[in-house]
Amino acid sequence: MRASFELPAFIVDRVVTLALEEDLASGDLTTEACIDQDTPARAHAVAREPLIVCGGPVFERAFARVDSLLVVEAHAVEGAHAPRGARLWTVRGRARSILMAERVALNLVQRMCGIATVTRAHVDEIPFGARTRITDTRKTTPGLRALERYAVRVGGGRNHRDDLGAGVLIKDNHVAACGGIRQAIERARATAPHTTKIECEVDSLEQLDVALAAGADVVLLDNLSTVAVAEAVRRTRGRALLEASGGITLNRIAELATAGVDAISVGSLTHSAAASDIGLDFDAGAGWA
Amino acid sequence: MRASFELPAFIVDRVVTLALEEDLASGDLTTEACIDQDTPARAHAVAREPLIVCGGPVFERAFARVDSLLVVEAHAVEGAHAPRGARLWTVRGRARSILMAERVALNLVQRMCGIATVTRAHVDEIPFGARTRITDTRKTTPGLRALERYAVRVGGGRNHRDDLGAGVLIKDNHVAACGGIRQAIERARATAPHTTKIECEVDSLEQLDVALAAGADVVLLDNLSTVAVAEAVRRTRGRALLEASGGITLNRIAELATAGVDAISVGSLTHSAAASDIGLDFDAGAGWA
Amino acid sequence: MRASFELPAFIVDRVVTLALEEDLASGDLTTEACIDQDTPARAHAVAREPLIVCGGPVFERAFARVDSLLVVEAHAVEGAHAPRGARLWTVRGRARSILMAERVALNLVQRMCGIATVTRAHVDEIPFGARTRITDTRKTTPGLRALERYAVRVGGGRNHRDDLGAGVLIKDNHVAACGGIRQAIERARATAPHTTKIECEVDSLEQLDVALAAGADVVLLDNLSTVAVAEAVRRTRGRALLEASGGITLNRIAELATAGVDAISVGSLTHSAAASDIGLDFDAGAGWA
Amino acid sequence: MRASFELPAFIVDRVVTLALEEDLASGDLTTEACIDQDTPARAHAVAREPLIVCGGPVFERAFARVDSLLVVEAHAVEGAHAPRGARLWTVRGRARSILMAERVALNLVQRMCGIATVTRAHVDEIPFGARTRITDTRKTTPGLRALERYAVRVGGGRNHRDDLGAGVLIKDNHVAACGGIRQAIERARATAPHTTKIECEVDSLEQLDVALAAGADVVLLDNLSTVAVAEAVRRTRGRALLEASGGITLNRIAELATAGVDAISVGSLTHSAAASDIGLDFDAGAGWA
Amino acid sequence: MRASFELPAFIVDRVVTLALEEDLASGDLTTEACIDQDTPARAHAVAREPLIVCGGPVFERAFARVDSLLVVEAHAVEGAHAPRGARLWTVRGRARSILMAERVALNLVQRMCGIATVTRAHVDEIPFGARTRITDTRKTTPGLRALERYAVRVGGGRNHRDDLGAGVLIKDNHVAACGGIRQAIERARATAPHTTKIECEVDSLEQLDVALAAGADVVLLDNLSTVAVAEAVRRTRGRALLEASGGITLNRIAELATAGVDAISVGSLTHSAAASDIGLDFDAGAGWA
Amino acid sequence: MRASFELPAFIVDRVVTLALEEDLASGDLTTEACIDQDTPARAHAVAREPLIVCGGPVFERAFARVDSLLVVEAHAVEGAHAPRGARLWTVRGRARSILMAERVALNLVQRMCGIATVTRAHVDEIPFGARTRITDTRKTTPGLRALERYAVRVGGGRNHRDDLGAGVLIKDNHVAACGGIRQAIERARATAPHTTKIECEVDSLEQLDVALAAGADVVLLDNLSTVAVAEAVRRTRGRALLEASGGITLNRIAELATAGVDAISVGSLTHSAAASDIGLDFDAGAGWA
Repeated sequence: MRASFELPAFIVDRVVTLALEEDLASGDLTTEACIDQDTPARAHAVAREPLIVCGGPVFERAFARVDSLLVVEAHAVEGAHAPRGARLWTVRGRARSILMAERVALNLVQRMCGIATVTRAHVDEIPFGARTRITDTRKTTPGLRALERYAVRVGGGRNHRDDLGAGVLIKDNHVAACGGIRQAIERARATAPHTTKIECEVDSLEQLDVALAAGADVVLLDNLSTVAVAEAVRRTRGRALLEASGGITLNRIAELATAGVDAISVGSLTHSAAASDIGLDFDAGAGWA
Repeated sequence: MRASFELPAFIVDRVVTLALEEDLASGDLTTEACIDQDTPARAHAVAREPLIVCGGPVFERAFARVDSLLVVEAHAVEGAHAPRGARLWTVRGRARSILMAERVALNLVQRMCGIATVTRAHVDEIPFGARTRITDTRKTTPGLRALERYAVRVGGGRNHRDDLGAGVLIKDNHVAACGGIRQAIERARATAPHTTKIECEVDSLEQLDVALAAGADVVLLDNLSTVAVAEAVRRTRGRALLEASGGITLNRIAELATAGVDAISVGSLTHSAAASDIGLDFDAGAGWA
Repeated sequence: MRASFELPAFIVDRVVTLALEEDLASGDLTTEACIDQDTPARAHAVAREPLIVCGGPVFERAFARVDSLLVVEAHAVEGAHAPRGARLWTVRGRARSILMAERVALNLVQRMCGIATVTRAHVDEIPFGARTRITDTRKTTPGLRALERYAVRVGGGRNHRDDLGAGVLIKDNHVAACGGIRQAIERARATAPHTTKIECEVDSLEQLDVALAAGADVVLLDNLSTVAVAEAVRRTRGRALLEASGGITLNRIAELATAGVDAISVGSLTHSAAASDIGLDFDAGAGWA
Repeated sequence: MRASFELPAFIVDRVVTLALEEDLASGDLTTEACIDQDTPARAHAVAREPLIVCGGPVFERAFARVDSLLVVEAHAVEGAHAPRGARLWTVRGRARSILMAERVALNLVQRMCGIATVTRAHVDEIPFGARTRITDTRKTTPGLRALERYAVRVGGGRNHRDDLGAGVLIKDNHVAACGGIRQAIERARATAPHTTKIECEVDSLEQLDVALAAGADVVLLDNLSTVAVAEAVRRTRGRALLEASGGITLNRIAELATAGVDAISVGSLTHSAAASDIGLDFDAGAGWA
Repeated sequence: MRASFELPAFIVDRVVTLALEEDLASGDLTTEACIDQDTPARAHAVAREPLIVCGGPVFERAFARVDSLLVVEAHAVEGAHAPRGARLWTVRGRARSILMAERVALNLVQRMCGIATVTRAHVDEIPFGARTRITDTRKTTPGLRALERYAVRVGGGRNHRDDLGAGVLIKDNHVAACGGIRQAIERARATAPHTTKIECEVDSLEQLDVALAAGADVVLLDNLSTVAVAEAVRRTRGRALLEASGGITLNRIAELATAGVDAISVGSLTHSAAASDIGLDFDAGAGWA
Repeated sequence: MRASFELPAFIVDRVVTLALEEDLASGDLTTEACIDQDTPARAHAVAREPLIVCGGPVFERAFARVDSLLVVEAHAVEGAHAPRGARLWTVRGRARSILMAERVALNLVQRMCGIATVTRAHVDEIPFGARTRITDTRKTTPGLRALERYAVRVGGGRNHRDDLGAGVLIKDNHVAACGGIRQAIERARATAPHTTKIECEVDSLEQLDVALAAGADVVLLDNLSTVAVAEAVRRTRGRALLEASGGITLNRIAELATAGVDAISVGSLTHSAAASDIGLDFDAGAGWA
């Protein structure tokens, strides 16, 4: 089964509209001056570097919200690998409309492709046969969480809990306030939805033992060495899922996966991903010259 | 005169509310379970790496929108250099409220400090005595443009035009549609507000000559070598401002400034800045244990 | 430890503002005509029937959004039982402002008290010693989900997953599309966040066996008789949590709990709760007559 | 002439979008995992109990906002009586999209049908030949007033004033503040729009006499016995419209109508209507199995 | 009794925020450059021509939304007559904040004072002893209806129906569609809220007779001569209220009032009112120089 | 080249929706009562006085947001001169929908045509051969700035800076705070975007000299006599653009243009433009009668 992903239309519309308000609320001085009203054009989004394709539905809506007559064609499915120079999408219609929406469309897909690409790089580090998943965190760009989590999935990663209401994650401050890991886990289990796993963060093997004894469903190993992680896997014996986290860099993925953790959560997928370099090339002669 | 910057309150409120809706709209399962209702706490935002301080007003509002009784104190002015370990801001009040707003507050200021810090790194490359300014571009994060442009200023950079309605920038497609640089400049001057300079992008010295002859106020030198940039400065003789752009990296700043351009616009300040590493450390005995 | 619940301020503000827009966007003809501008008043929200107190923060904000000088005092904590005639909250300030916000405030708290009260009635049916929890469903009033889920917690119930992104619940159509319960569970486990339990709906004991064998974390027993539910508990032997659902009425709670299910989800808590009868009584002589 | 009702598109869109944001803002974990991207489906909204059909335009938009390619067909007009088992509407298109919008669509139409159905039950109590109308009140669900008032009309009821700016209704507190019914009516008539009737609430026949003498256009008889209502009709002799209100139950409708009141306003039509039971049945074999 | 008017806070906030978004979303280049961060200032809104004071609460909020520490003092009540040169309101606080909000605050109050002033001019034309009221129409500025209707009341006028749902006004097209005035009135009376009067537009005395016979509560005399209006008053004999409308100019008010109509509705109060000339004068020496 | 203007679709949608919420949020009592559901109609927007056509895209969307099946046909291009009686646009579809959107559509285009028409009147005063442009100011209607600036362009005027972030305009208070015109200009040039001209307001020829010496790009001559303006032109010798402003009336345009200023900014174009008189005439036999 080929993977495929959903991004509900009303979410895309909200983000695109917000971005257009920022860039185009007072019109486009240059385009209104220089381009005749009905000049047609055709332009191609082109990968200026290798990347994982992501954001087709967003690209399409950014143009459609400026001019509903613009037509976008996709040349690759979401998640495909595009080599340098590959055409990703083509937009046709009034030149003015294309130029007015260009920056917003590119800003969004460059970010989405950037996240999908860096996610794929991490996923590709997982050794053959290992079942470890790469996940995002809540360290997303404010306002763009739905798009960035989608980009992580498109890149081959998996999502962590969406927000504070979608899962329990007991951290050091919760533990301190409750007087111990066991007490915190018990309080969470007593009140959180029965549909939610109880995850607890630990920073030592001793804490891990306590969390397991208290019945944690998932244990987050915070900033543990790979040796300690491997020991954690041994001690756990499948009683809980183990997630490694904390300043994870690309070159540690393989060893952590080999150590046997179930998940590696990587904040930098979203909080520090560089934008992919994508340009919009206009066909010469399509409407002018 | 000490530099100082403004970020209107209603802009901050809009962004903060949007971010809170994303993360907290369905509550905080863990905190409601583990923290008693009236437990007090005090927590410090601490630089985990050297950075330029940016985002105090945003940090304050993120907490205030969750609980208007939280109090935030700033330990450094916007734009200050903070060494690793420095306390940036302290928040006091109900522990629950602090934990519920923590991630949103950090996501925002980590991004803002990241941009201010990378901007400062570019600004610091300008040789003593040179008058070149480092500017941002419109390659900002959708929804966060006002905050990111503010961060650029805090970092010592300057802003480029805010949006498509705030300035004229004639690019290759406009030129192609008009039949030439001269025609494009004339059309723009005829209709754009008289308060706006006419900027024209060129990718050769020949185009520069045409743009100057047509009376461009600013010429953007797109992807020119430093040698060509120096020649452009010579030819221009102050008739227009010159802006270098296109894949600018940190190590080219000094030579471009020395060549004499008036501005260097750097998209990566905003589209690819890594988030600064900032943690929120709770005081041990402030409210529990 | 006394239970206590959180309702973030920005959520309350959004709902209250929407409700005021509906009722007061074109002013209050009667009050502007009949009440002098600075007449003071004091009014008490009074339970006209026994109820569980719920909605104090909402009541307060409804008045504050019309006039920030109104002062609200609460006479009972959230979740308390109020007998007929009990004063719940008192509001003081300009009579005009109180009259303008009265209906919006009452509409909201009558609904919230109604849900808390019917939830408590269900919770009180759980026999002593049983650990079964009463939960809500996603059958909430559009626009009011956060308030209604809060009211369920205040009433002593627990929340089910908040939304479609906060948990996996495999229903008959998912099963049909996947070709079987086992396949559906495997697909969900492969892609859903590792922080989320996999819940699967079944309508027979045979399906239960399949779901358990496939490793479901929670099984929803849809419209099963109490006898079948008891048999399901026996077969499951703690391998998964069991949730009874489907047209649950108050008089079946005790027998289902006794049968040993972990959770009973009740759509009518939110989709059909009658509003509690609460009136706003003005003090005679507080400002007029 | 057959009755027919309007619900402007932008109102429906706003409510539907708000509801989708609540339920689907972070995607649908189960559906994305279990349903292939292009699987088609067809599903029918079916009455699980007798009801008055209401909400077709809302049902349609809930699906359209998730996927503009979904097609909805209505099998009955608004206001029709549907027996148990009747198909109300059919939706066709991508199975994923249908599943993602299902709950939001059902939550809305179940509420609307519920209100239309209970309204019809009240209307059907009006004896043949009586001209009494059943009306709603302002005790509507916050955020859903337009939909609920529409449902009342569809059920055969009539609307009361929409909001505080759409009509004058003098209540006891207004009377107390003005120093008497006569003074309150005079003040209201002096300032309220000349397009608005002056309605005054009374709780005794003595007050009725005063209100009539002061020229009230409508008098609301609050919590009067049927005998007193009949006497009120006699005294009024058509000088004003009479409206009975206050804890009206279904079994008093006939006697109040016979007593001759012009309108009976019933808060429970909207504040306590149970949702109608409506299911969404998928065609087996339409897209899978 | 002194007249007084209400403008709910959440309405003012919404309008002010929208206006600030338009003018200040990308900051204030000039003020940030030229004014030091903590320079204090005091400025006075001064009438540059005689006017009716209107908009104090809006003036205050425009400044407060930019900087909650600004303090506004009102020197005159709403509705007062201000001679040329009069100080209306004074604002104190950071100079930057005052300058950033100045234009938005002035744009709003100039419009509101303009409407109040032109309304007062019309009201002053009503001869002593006549009971005719001057009213607005629905020809208001999109987005500002609540503020403009408030300004009409402050100016001594009265409001017409607020919107299409707040009253019945049968116009020529409704009549044409129904097949006659009588049929239209009957249809409206059968379905419109019983709290609403039935108003019908007529353009001849013959139509007036029909409308009266059909029981219209209000008849709008559209573009009738003063002689015809006087005849209409005679024929009506108090059976309905009469409203004159259609291209009313100031110099016809007196004669129409003398003719005895109950209301004169004047679209130009809102659709074509000139803004009052109001300046903001800064105290020299308050914070600089 | 024929002039042509852009108004992005999402801007129009936002304004139209806001206006419809105001007028139609609680339905249209009269139309629902009097017009049958499927009655078709055709109606023509007709100029009741000579005007400049403006607002076609807004007119179209106002109808489309109420009923997406309405079809609008334009009979004239934006900016055309329409004589009294000319048909501007025709709308066809359900009569109910047309009547429900009529007032909102007319309110918007009457205002836009009014602004375009008064702008054209000013532009027509410019003597043959003069290059002076007529511009708007920031004295626009809150919430309608984008539409009003568009109308100014359609009328043949030019726009001034859009908002406080789109240009520098140093006024007397900035000068006072900086200690002089020179200092203010230097501070602005140091921090404002290099794409923005520095404009400075002066109220005497002495101040003009200082501004020119300091390198102002544009000088605003505030309330200067025509003689003084002519002298200013002489002194400036093209070193800066000159803009005349301050209480400009139509009859001064020619002399100011002859004096040689580059721009005349006229606040009354937007803050006091009378609405154009436009009616909506329904075809008699198109759907009824």
